[in-house]
Formats: sequence, C-alpha cells, structure tokens
Amino acid sequence: MALNYDFKYFTVDFPSDYPHVAHVEINRADKMNAFFEAMWLELAQVFNRLSEDPAVRAIVLSGAGDRAFTTGLDVKAASEGRFASEKIDDPARKAVHWRRHIVEFQGCITSVERCEKPVIVAMHGFALGLGIDLSTAADVRICSRDVQFAVKEVDIGLAADIGTLSRLPKVVGSFGWVKELAMTARVFGAEEALRVGFVNSIHETRQDTIAAALKLAGLMGTKSPVAVQGTKEILNWSRDHSVQDGLRYTGVWNSAALQTQDIPAALLSGIQKRKPTFEKL
Amino acid sequence: MALNYDFKYFTVDFPSDYPHVAHVEINRADKMNAFFEAMWLELAQVFNRLSEDPAVRAIVLSGAGDRAFTTGLDVKAASEGRFASEKIDDPARKAVHWRRHIVEFQGCITSVERCEKPVIVAMHGFALGLGIDLSTAADVRICSRDVQFAVKEVDIGLAADIGTLSRLPKVVGSFGWVKELAMTARVFGAEEALRVGFVNSIHETRQDTIAAALKLAGLMGTKSPVAVQGTKEILNWSRDHSVQDGLRYTGVWNSAALQTQDIPAALLSGIQKRKPTFEKL
Amino acid sequence: MALNYDFKYFTVDFPSDYPHVAHVEINRADKMNAFFEAMWLELAQVFNRLSEDPAVRAIVLSGAGDRAFTTGLDVKAASEGRFASEKIDDPARKAVHWRRHIVEFQGCITSVERCEKPVIVAMHGFALGLGIDLSTAADVRICSRDVQFAVKEVDIGLAADIGTLSRLPKVVGSFGWVKELAMTARVFGAEEALRVGFVNSIHETRQDTIAAALKLAGLMGTKSPVAVQGTKEILNWSRDHSVQDGLRYTGVWNSAALQTQDIPAALLSGIQKRKPTFEKL
Amino acid sequence: MALNYDFKYFTVDFPSDYPHVAHVEINRADKMNAFFEAMWLELAQVFNRLSEDPAVRAIVLSGAGDRAFTTGLDVKAASEGRFASEKIDDPARKAVHWRRHIVEFQGCITSVERCEKPVIVAMHGFALGLGIDLSTAADVRICSRDVQFAVKEVDIGLAADIGTLSRLPKVVGSFGWVKELAMTARVFGAEEALRVGFVNSIHETRQDTIAAALKLAGLMGTKSPVAVQGTKEILNWSRDHSVQDGLRYTGVWNSAALQTQDIPAALLSGIQKRKPTFEKL
Amino acid sequence: MALNYDFKYFTVDFPSDYPHVAHVEINRADKMNAFFEAMWLELAQVFNRLSEDPAVRAIVLSGAGDRAFTTGLDVKAASEGRFASEKIDDPARKAVHWRRHIVEFQGCITSVERCEKPVIVAMHGFALGLGIDLSTAADVRICSRDVQFAVKEVDIGLAADIGTLSRLPKVVGSFGWVKELAMTARVFGAEEALRVGFVNSIHETRQDTIAAALKLAGLMGTKSPVAVQGTKEILNWSRDHSVQDGLRYTGVWNSAALQTQDIPAALLSGIQKRKPTFEKL
Amino acid sequence: MALNYDFKYFTVDFPSDYPHVAHVEINRADKMNAFFEAMWLELAQVFNRLSEDPAVRAIVLSGAGDRAFTTGLDVKAASEGRFASEKIDDPARKAVHWRRHIVEFQGCITSVERCEKPVIVAMHGFALGLGIDLSTAADVRICSRDVQFAVKEVDIGLAADIGTLSRLPKVVGSFGWVKELAMTARVFGAEEALRVGFVNSIHETRQDTIAAALKLAGLMGTKSPVAVQGTKEILNWSRDHSVQDGLRYTGVWNSAALQTQDIPAALLSGIQKRKPTFEKL
Repeated sequence: MALNYDFKYFTVDFPSDYPHVAHVEINRADKMNAFFEAMWLELAQVFNRLSEDPAVRAIVLSGAGDRAFTTGLDVKAASEGRFASEKIDDPARKAVHWRRHIVEFQGCITSVERCEKPVIVAMHGFALGLGIDLSTAADVRICSRDVQFAVKEVDIGLAADIGTLSRLPKVVGSFGWVKELAMTARVFGAEEALRVGFVNSIHETRQDTIAAALKLAGLMGTKSPVAVQGTKEILNWSRDHSVQDGLRYTGVWNSAALQTQDIPAALLSGIQKRKPTFEKL
Repeated sequence: MALNYDFKYFTVDFPSDYPHVAHVEINRADKMNAFFEAMWLELAQVFNRLSEDPAVRAIVLSGAGDRAFTTGLDVKAASEGRFASEKIDDPARKAVHWRRHIVEFQGCITSVERCEKPVIVAMHGFALGLGIDLSTAADVRICSRDVQFAVKEVDIGLAADIGTLSRLPKVVGSFGWVKELAMTARVFGAEEALRVGFVNSIHETRQDTIAAALKLAGLMGTKSPVAVQGTKEILNWSRDHSVQDGLRYTGVWNSAALQTQDIPAALLSGIQKRKPTFEKL
Repeated sequence: MALNYDFKYFTVDFPSDYPHVAHVEINRADKMNAFFEAMWLELAQVFNRLSEDPAVRAIVLSGAGDRAFTTGLDVKAASEGRFASEKIDDPARKAVHWRRHIVEFQGCITSVERCEKPVIVAMHGFALGLGIDLSTAADVRICSRDVQFAVKEVDIGLAADIGTLSRLPKVVGSFGWVKELAMTARVFGAEEALRVGFVNSIHETRQDTIAAALKLAGLMGTKSPVAVQGTKEILNWSRDHSVQDGLRYTGVWNSAALQTQDIPAALLSGIQKRKPTFEKL
Repeated sequence: MALNYDFKYFTVDFPSDYPHVAHVEINRADKMNAFFEAMWLELAQVFNRLSEDPAVRAIVLSGAGDRAFTTGLDVKAASEGRFASEKIDDPARKAVHWRRHIVEFQGCITSVERCEKPVIVAMHGFALGLGIDLSTAADVRICSRDVQFAVKEVDIGLAADIGTLSRLPKVVGSFGWVKELAMTARVFGAEEALRVGFVNSIHETRQDTIAAALKLAGLMGTKSPVAVQGTKEILNWSRDHSVQDGLRYTGVWNSAALQTQDIPAALLSGIQKRKPTFEKL
Repeated sequence: MALNYDFKYFTVDFPSDYPHVAHVEINRADKMNAFFEAMWLELAQVFNRLSEDPAVRAIVLSGAGDRAFTTGLDVKAASEGRFASEKIDDPARKAVHWRRHIVEFQGCITSVERCEKPVIVAMHGFALGLGIDLSTAADVRICSRDVQFAVKEVDIGLAADIGTLSRLPKVVGSFGWVKELAMTARVFGAEEALRVGFVNSIHETRQDTIAAALKLAGLMGTKSPVAVQGTKEILNWSRDHSVQDGLRYTGVWNSAALQTQDIPAALLSGIQKRKPTFEKL
Repeated sequence: MALNYDFKYFTVDFPSDYPHVAHVEINRADKMNAFFEAMWLELAQVFNRLSEDPAVRAIVLSGAGDRAFTTGLDVKAASEGRFASEKIDDPARKAVHWRRHIVEFQGCITSVERCEKPVIVAMHGFALGLGIDLSTAADVRICSRDVQFAVKEVDIGLAADIGTLSRLPKVVGSFGWVKELAMTARVFGAEEALRVGFVNSIHETRQDTIAAALKLAGLMGTKSPVAVQGTKEILNWSRDHSVQDGLRYTGVWNSAALQTQDIPAALLSGIQKRKPTFEKL
C-alpha cells in the first residue's frame, strides 16, 4: 500500500527513471520558499514518512522556482506567529517558552538527518539561513553555479540555532572559515563552497543540479538498502563518537546486517556481471 | 570608565576607523616576538580584560616588526627561567612541577579561545611553534604571502604541548597533513595554509594583512554583539560535543539571547535599509 | 638482539639509507594483495612487533606488484573460510559469532593505529575496500598518479565495518564527500584524494611513491623518538576527545616526556648546527 | 483553557488538596495494568501534555487496583500484535523493524524523563519488567510494604531494552546489585529497594503510598516552578556529563532563570514568614 | 620559605600533632559563616595556595562557632552587592552578566576540587545551600550528630548553580534521594547522610568531628604524597570518563609516578617495620 | 570438542550440579595467591577462553587456601622481575616502558570484564590491592564474614593503576568512601562492604561463599544465554555512556537478539510451567 504524500508546502514525486528515488520539493516559490512554522512541521512529516517507506532508497531535496532554494525564515510570518502574541513578562518563563520552541524547531530539521535513507540536497539561487541549517542535516549537498549561500542569522541579531552552528563545523574542514562565515553573514558562492567541501559538485543550472542529484540518488538506489542505510547510520554515529565507540557500534550493527541475503545476491551478481535486485527496506 | 591597557609586551590600540575593534600587537620585535613566561602571563591578562570590556566587539592579534609574527618560545630565556634552576631529583616530583607549569601555560593560551569576542590573527614572516598554538586558539587566521609556518616543537625534542596538537586537527580538514607537519616540523607557506583551510585568506604584505584583519573585525563589530558572541561560544562548544549536545546547548543559550532588543533593532534596520546600532556588551 | 621479522604474507625490510625506518610490504602480488584471515592476523603481529622494536622510529607500508596496493578482502577465500562452514540457525547466536569476528578483524587493522611509531602508507594501483580501512588507520597517506581508490563495501551488500566509516570522516574535511563515496562505491583518483586531504602528495610511479614515503619516514626518523611518538599519541587522543581533555592528557604525558635528555641534545645540536643523535626507544 | 486529559488507559486527576499536582493512574486493573502498544503510546501523550501544562508543577504516577503497579509487558497482547504478523525473512531487514519498534517504545518511556515537571512513582503489588523501566525514568520512587519488584526480562529470553539497563545503574549505587538482579530476574522487596536507594521511602498500603506521593508532589508544587523544573533538567543533564560540562550547562541555564521574579518573591516571603505564590509555568 | 596564610575570612592552622596537615576554618561565626563574594574569592586563594604548598599533604575544612558550618549564601549581602546595582535592561545582556558571575563563583568552589591535596570537610550545625556545594567539591565529608543539611536553593527560587546539582549525584548512590532533596529543600540529618553515603562517619560534637577529620588527614599525611595526590587526581578524572579512558589516563600518569623514590622507601619501611619518610611535594 | 583448561596458576572446574558453570580458582595458596606477571598473563588466557566457550554460561572466581582470596601483587617477585633489571636512565624512555607494562597489566585484568559471561567473585580472608582491582572487573562480588579488604596501593607508594581507581567509584555509591579507602589503605570488612554496595551478600565461611556463588551462577546458567550475555554487555556499555547512548546501543543490540528462538522457548516454558532449555552460546 502506497503511503500518502499529499502535502501542502512540499511536493513529493517518484521519478520513473529512478525506481527507488523520491524527489521532495519545497513548494512556495512565490515567497522564494521562505519557511514558517507550518512548513517545518510538515517537513518533519515528509521525512518521517519517507524514512520508513519501503519503496524509497534515496531522496533528493530541492526548491521550486528559479530564484531560491530557500531564503530561510519568513521573518514577517514569524513575527506575526504565536511568539509575537505571547504575553509573558518574566524573562525566566519567556526563556522556557523559547527553549521549547527552539527544541521543536530543531527536531523538525533533524528529521532529515534521522531519515534512514540518504538525502541529497540540490541548491540554487538563494540558500540562506535556514537553508544552510537544512542542508547540513542532509547527507550530500550539490549546487548550481548561480547559488548564493549565507549563514544569515547574525544579520537579524541572533546566533543560528536550528543546526548550522552544531553541524557545519563537522561538515566542512576549515573551522576558521566556518567562524568567519557565521560571524559576518557574508555571501559565498559555488566555487568557494566546493573548495571548502560544503558541496560535492557544481552544475550549470537548477535543472542540471536536480538532474545530477537524481542521478546520484539513483545510483545509491541500485545498491543494497541494508548496506546504504547502515552506512548512513554508522557515519552519523561515528561523527559524534570516538573511533573506539564507532568501531564497537559498527560491530554490533553489522552482526545483524551481515545476515542479509543482499550479500550473496550482490556477490553472485558481481560474478555474473548483472545487476542485482534487493528486497524492499 | 575605560579599562587600562597599558602592558609591557603587548600594545593594545583602538583604531578609529573601526569603532568596536581592539588591535593587540605582540611587541618584542627585536627578538622576533619570541615568548618567555612573563609574556604569556601578560597575554592572558590582555585577553581576559578584552573579554569583558563592553566597548570591544572584535579583536585583531598581530606581531610587531617586519620579520615575524612570533618565532615561538624564547628557548634561551626559558632555559634560564625557573625550571632550569629547580633542583628536584625525584622524577615523579619533577613531573608534578612540569605538569603544573604546562597547565598554567596552556591556560594562558586558552585565554584567547575563552575570550568572548572573536579574535582574528594576522600573521606574517615567521610563525613558529607557540605561534601555531596561539593562532589555533583564535577564531580566524589570515596571513601575508611571505609567512613561514612550522609546528616546530619536535625539532627541540618535544611534542607540542600548549594547544597545537589538540586544536589543529579540529581547525583543518586533513588529519594526515597535520600528522606530517607535526612529526617533521617542515615549514609550510601561505598557499599550502590556504589549501588545507588553516588560513582564510592571503595578503601581500604585513600591513595589508593587518588591514584586512581590521576590516574583517570591523565587519563583525557592526553586527549584534549578542549574536556574534553567542555564535563564537556555540561553535566552540559544538566542536567538542555531539550534534545532539550542541543543539541542546544552543537551545538553552538562545532561550535568553532571543529576548534581546537587538533582534527587533536588526529587523527594523533591515526594513529601513539603515545600519543598526546595538548596546554595548 | 634483533627481533624476528620473518612473516609469510609481509616482507619487512630495513633500508640502509634510512637507519631507523622499517619498510613493510604486503606480499601477495599474484592475488593483487587481497586479504584473507591469516593475513590480517599476521598484519597485527607485524605492527605489534614494530611498535616495541627500539630500532624502529618510522614505518612505510606498501603493496607488492604493479597492479595494486590491495584490492581488499579476498571474497573467494572469505566465503570458503570458517564462517561459510558455521552451522548456526539462531539469528541471535549467529550475530554473536559475527560480532566476535568483526571485533577481532577491527583489532587487527587498529594495530596500525596503536603502533607507537608513525606509519606512512604508499599506495598505487587498486586500493579498494580494506585498503581504505587500512590506510585510514595509518598516519600519513601518499599515492602514485595511477591509484584507484574506492570504499567498495556497499557493492557487496554491506556497510564497511573494519574502520573506514569510523575513521575516514576524521581523516578528511568534507563529510558530504565521505558520504557520497561510501554510499556509491564510486572510484576516485589521486587528484581528488589530494584535494579532499585524503593523501598528502602524489608521485609518478609506484617506485617514486615508495621512495617518497621512505624519505618522509627517514626525516621523522631523524627527530627525537620521544617527541615523535608523543606527537602521534597525543594527536590520536585529541581526535577522540574535547580540546579540554586533549590539553589535560598532553600535560600529563609531557610531565614525563619533558624530562628526556633528547631536549638538551636537540637544543645543543641546534646551536652547534649539527645533527643530533637520540637513544633508542 | 484547560487541556484535555481524557485518556483510555490512564486517568488523570487533579486532587483538590494539592493545587498544582496531577495524579496519573494506569487504569487496566483487570489485567494487573499490563502494557500493550496502545498504552505506551498513550502514556507518552499524557506526559507530553503534562510537561507543557502551565497548571501542573508535579506529577504522581500509580497503578489502579490492589494487585499491581504493573506486571509489565502484556506478553499475550504483544504476541498477537503487529510483530507477530510481520512476514519478513531476511534477518537484517527484520532487525531494522525491531530497532524501529524498540526506539519508538523507548521514546514513550523516556517521555516521563523528558517531562519538565517532577514525577513521583508510587508502586505497590507487582512492579515487574516494564514497571522498573518506567519507574527509573521518573524522578522519585516510593513504594508500599507489599511491593514485589523484578527486572523480569531475562525470564522471557531477552535483555531489558526500554530503559532499565541504561538507567538503573545510575539510579542506585551498587552496580553488582544491579547486575545480579538483571541477570537472575530475582524478586526483591521494599526493604531491599530502600537499602540500595531504589526507593526513597516505604509505606503501609497502596493508599498510604499514594497519599505520601501526593504530599511530596504537593510540597514540590509550593516551590518556584522555575527553580524546581530547572533542578530536574540540570540533574538529568549532569547525570550524563562530566562535572565540568554540568557546571557550564548550569551557568547558561541559570543566566536566564535568575532573572525570574520568583527569586524576590521567595526572598520576601521568607522575610515576611508567609507562603509565596508563583506565576504559572 | 613558608607561604603566607594570613586571610580575612579564613584561618589556616598547622596542628602540631599532624605534621603535614593544614586546618582551614571559615571564620565568620557571628553570621553563621554565611558567604558573600569577597569570601569565595578568598576561599579560592586559600586552596590554590595550599594546593602547591610542599609542606601540606592533607587539609581539613570546618566552620567556626557552635551554630553552623555555614548557612550558605548571605542573601542580604548578596542583594546589596554589585548585581543589585547593575542597571541592565536587555535580558540577553543581563544573562551574559549572570553567566560570567556564576562561572566565576563556580570556579571558586571548584578550587577545592582542583586542590591537589585531599580535603576533608568536618561539618556541624547548619550546613545549607552553598555548604552542600562546597562539601561536594571536597574529597571526604564527616559530620557531628547535630548537623542539619539542606539543598536549600529552591526555597529562594533558584536551581543550585555552583556545584551541588552536578556533583551530588556522583557523590551519593541514590539519584531519587538527590532529586527529592534538591526539589524540596527538606532538611536531613547525620544518620540519613551516612545511610546514603554523603558522609563517611558521624561524631558527637563539633570538636569530635574536627578531631576525627584531623586524624584522618593525619593518616593520609603519613602516606607517600606522590601516591595520595595521584589517587585524588585519577579518581576525579575517572568520575567523569569511561573506564577505558580512566585506565589510559592512569597508565600515562603512573608512567612518571612509578619512578618515584617513595616506592622503594615505602617497601623498605614495610620490611623494616618502621615509618617511612617521604620528600615534600 | 572441549577446550583445554589446563593452567599452571588457575584451576578450572565444571561442577556437576551446575551444568553451565565454570569455577576458576587462583591456585597459589602457599603464597596467599599473590600475583606475579606470569599469573596475570595466564588469567587473561583463562577468561578469554571461557568467554567464547559455548558450554559456559556463568563463572565463579575464588582463591585457594584458607587465608586469602589474594594478597595482591607479589612484591618480592615483582622486584626481581624484568623491571628491576631494566637499565634505562632517561626518565622519558623509562616512562614509555612503564606505560606499556601498565597497559598490558590492565588488559589482563580487563579480560574479566570483557568476558562475555557473568563473573561472580567469591572472596575470603585477605583480598588486598590487586584483589580489589580484579573484583571490580567482575560482575558480582560476595564474601565470607572473615574477609579483610584493602585498597592497599598507597601503602607501597603508588596510586592503584590496574583498575580500582577507575572502576570502584562506579561499583559503589559513595564517592567519599572510595576516596577515604583509596587514600588511607584502611582495612574494611564484610559488613562495611555490604553497606556501601561493594558486595551483594555475606556468608559464614569460604566454603559457604563459594557454594553461594556457584548457586547464583547456576541460577544465571538456567536463563537464556542470549538474554544474560546481552544484559552484561549493555550494562557495561551503559555505565560508560549517557542514557541516550545507552538506549541507542540497546536498540541496535536487541534488533538481532530479539530474533532468538530463546524467547518463544522461554515463553512456552512459562506457560507450561517447565524449565526451558536453550542452545549453547
């Protein structure tokens, strides 16, 4: 039974050329895909569903419209939202409410990282603020030549709090570069992003970028899902633990995973020079 | 009331072009800014004071004279210092004294990291040994084209112990490069430093480098100090913790920080296309 | 008394040009140095012995034959090995056996990391699967221009479980690149490896690569072994701990190491412009 | 606006004697409060709602009926549930499904720990298996004299996996005692539980136990909710972190909390010898 | 050269019966030894000095006067102090100031833990709030029969923030007991403190308690200071790390410490049945 | 095929009353079971073998002779061993040798903890120094009424370095008690050991203690070995990790373990009121 992917702010397609790939698009092009609360709550639903959908093995995330992957938080909508109307005077109580709000918001973005299937983000145009938070929660980032990235938050008076500051230093290899970017909100482009390892590749247009992302996702989709999903999980665990703990966790994980029929299937296909097929997961 | 910045081995200026920026210069040019104990104790005082000085929002650190940012430890001064004169025979007791000494020394260098304001290091000429330790405790590193870096310590028979070995692998993205450099003491130059992400940019001369550092600090100084200082703190915390713990800490931090008047001030300035002003911090 | 280095699958030479260097070569060229269980058990013996051999200060690891550093696991040998013959039905009990097997296998690869002396890997031709696991456990990686790397494991239906997924993200600076490579098994070459920081340098031929590795090891071998071995240990510890814990460990480590006679020896040699000699370690 | 607490398997009362206290009772007395999936999903809803209910400051959890707090998992219901009907052959895929199930189940139990208000568990009769998991996620445990505890899971062939093995060693002070109990499933009573620090106090009957729990919750409810909820959060954080990290987190937390009006209110009440009132939270 | 121990709020004696013991007494009996800022700053000076005083091997801390070890924070003095006079409106900026204040305050209390010599606290009468924070930073706690302990902070509207919440759960073995005490501010006495492991022993009077503490410190003072100080350091490190990391740190620590002459001295004394003497440390 | 348990310093019996239990006895009664190097190397062999012996489900460890479980290190043998004969002058090189020695020694003791089957230590008479280290690496400790425990190391001038200082604070619930014991080397008896949670129970004689240990091991041996061994592993992991990481590891572990046939076997036996039998592991 197919799961329902009828969402308001996101379209979810299953491109016929890539049998196990889902393509999620942020669908608010008229506002340059700027986010407000209903959107990140829905984002979490989308990725939670994809995470357990046995038909899906890899996911592409992109933004609708020519101008932006996303310009980030829709400040206007946010300022009209529930927080603007809260009437709390006590700073300690106000802090509790803000913390709950941030934790919930972070959880929505983290749904991309927790999604058991690999997520490739294809970015173009503006990719600001929340766009960076979101992309660092994904597995692979690629972009078009016209992209304009910025860790924008200091420009509106706050430290980025939904993921960028925790994840970006672990995504790229120059801590000084991260600090400069996060403390100046300076725009950076595709070449700079490639040089520091933020993106894996650059493509000419938005369409080329999405096509490349789909192709890469398609390739992942031809591999054993037991192997690919285990790889994602173990890499994310290892990022946050010592090598010793990484190895131990891997050993326990694979003590079940190595019992899969995918291994003989893959080995046999290798010998027979044909493409293996794997059961759903 | 202005704080006193009258130090013996460091000059502290407040360049008029950048209202919230302090410029600290190591001031022992005749010895190529080599350090001895009195200097690192003073270094800690300088940065502890700047850390809580509400007039300061960003700091540039450079070295006086044409030849060197710093050649590192003044070995001659060190060998005449208190340790040369210690008369302890028992290796276990000698170890206690060495440990206390190292811990104190490390603490002085760490004062740069603990400083609540961003620190940009502008390096030129020789930047050896302690110069690397010091710069990895800063937030951003830039250099002139003539710079000669080296993790020099193995050449005098010791493993670098005041910060380089703990921080450098988290500052750049190639662990193999760090190992080669730290185990050979090989000199490396500006281009190599840029390629591995050790420095953010290269400039023609010492003066150009300092000018670029001041400009960058000046830019940080125009942003909300609540946002910039929170960003520094959260990035340093996140470096040493899992993403999960990073997100949690961020949520608690921002539960107070988001109550700042800097956010409406920044938003309003954005709308009105004018430069916001922020209260001291 | 010289230790015995008479092994079946590895040759261990002590090149006369580099007095303190050992050169280990994987010696199964007819099978492109593919590994089976007896080989990784022997590998651990080789590196455990070198670790405590006072005549050795640096190690080069390479593969015999023109075609490959190693093609990784010898799948055919593995499928005929003890696991193929195990007759266990209960998945939980089978998991216990797999876990024990993985933990033992991981331990053999980790013997390269635990080896107290620096290890430089010189790679050429195919360097696949286990070849990546092995090289990430070493300190420095260099390669020839013809090298073909791949994190190959997903192609046989499993997540890499003997080190790559835990170590590679800490060896290079682009997490997205690691994820792409590990989830697609795509081949990558020397230039890409250099760009992301996986290798330190590229050389024309296998012979050139080995020569460069020996030269680099030779240079490390001229330094104080107290300093070099301390540097390896502290860097590996720091990779897995916070900066705070790194600094503390360093202070305790050096409280003994700074009592070495290598420091005055190195300083005096520096003044006298001659090459220091250091006692064995 | 009062929140809705109309649940199927749990009753939620607000005893008039203790204005800020909620009393949750497991309400399946005919089956000795044994749990099946719908129940733990509902449990999470109950505690998530209480966590953010500003009228609630402390919570008591007990079990309906004379015979049991809970006998734990309803094995019969579980074996008829969705897992029994899953038709998956591949052990690796089966493992994925089990892991998802366990993680979801753990999350429901953890909702008690994550609940921002203190939770006091009042146990009587049988408190087996899941009953131990559940109680270790709470803040304070008390019991009646007739209670019979057991970490029951090994008796049905499995290691306890929804919290007991991770939390119990951090709840009591004898690791050897935990190991004996968890590896034998031996029943232990009230006196032994008090001696090892598992429960805080023993009461004569179920009613006495609930009365004592309500009184204790009532006392917590008279204190500043800013102070009490901060205390719960910081204690739980500190359990899982070094003292250093505990202190740092506390400092950041209280930088907002100390701005509360509850502090002057409490101080003034102290001077005036009257009971303070605090705003909701 | 004897160090200067002339302090305003603390007396430091060196009892003639116990050659290597220092006795520190909080000396503000007329205010039941309540603390204000100048006192905790001085406390840090006292313990920093004792930490490096080679004549001192063990320390006793007690409170002057019959009525109290200490009643904790002098709320009146605190409310007249610098914070009362701060005129900051912005909650985010106020939070920065509070955080700096808490961190500094915590650091003073932590000076007792960081002190390299063992510290035994002898408590009598009231030991409230800060008195608990202080005692958990010490190594051994003993008390008189009349003692009245309380984690008092929630009664003045705040979560204890200078150490109790981070250290107390690691000092005693019942997490539920800690939670009850910290969330109710309930007074507990000597017997309860002994039962949960908060104190090591109970004595009749204040004088008896101090005498017992001095005797215990005296006993520690007869042991090798290399051994005793190493034991304190390794135990504190191990509390905050995994067993694996604890063992590693111990190995590095003792690689220097085992070279001490205290070991042959102790062994020889054992054989000769006489009291060993050890060099200062 | 039965494994060979023919050792020199340890006897290994398989008592007929308890089908899956191994009884290991330290067999050097004439020297009160004092240890020298050959013994701890053999100890590791014993426990490594038992760990993977499918016939064994629980282990009892005791000491031969009436007088002692073990008096710890055989100082005389140790002083005549290889370290006494080492002729190294350089303190840094000497430190390397000591560290290697300690790490190897620790590893032998840790073999008891790493052993996959539960280990119950039955102690009587003297149980000093290494006896404490050894017992804290086991799962459950019980003792006879005449036992005399001491963390003896400070009496010979050193901090205990093969496990006690890292494990004892995590085995018992009073950190102050651990500190007193470790810094005074004071003897403590059975009652005190029970009170602090160091032992689980006290028995009249050595024989009674061993009988009780065998009975307890026998009980564990009747349970599913999948469940019992998983419980040991998860409890040890959880001791060293946050609750969050403990839960995650448990989920992955049990994703394989729950597929065991032991669960239906145990459930069915429960219904049929008969004793289940489980396959070997």
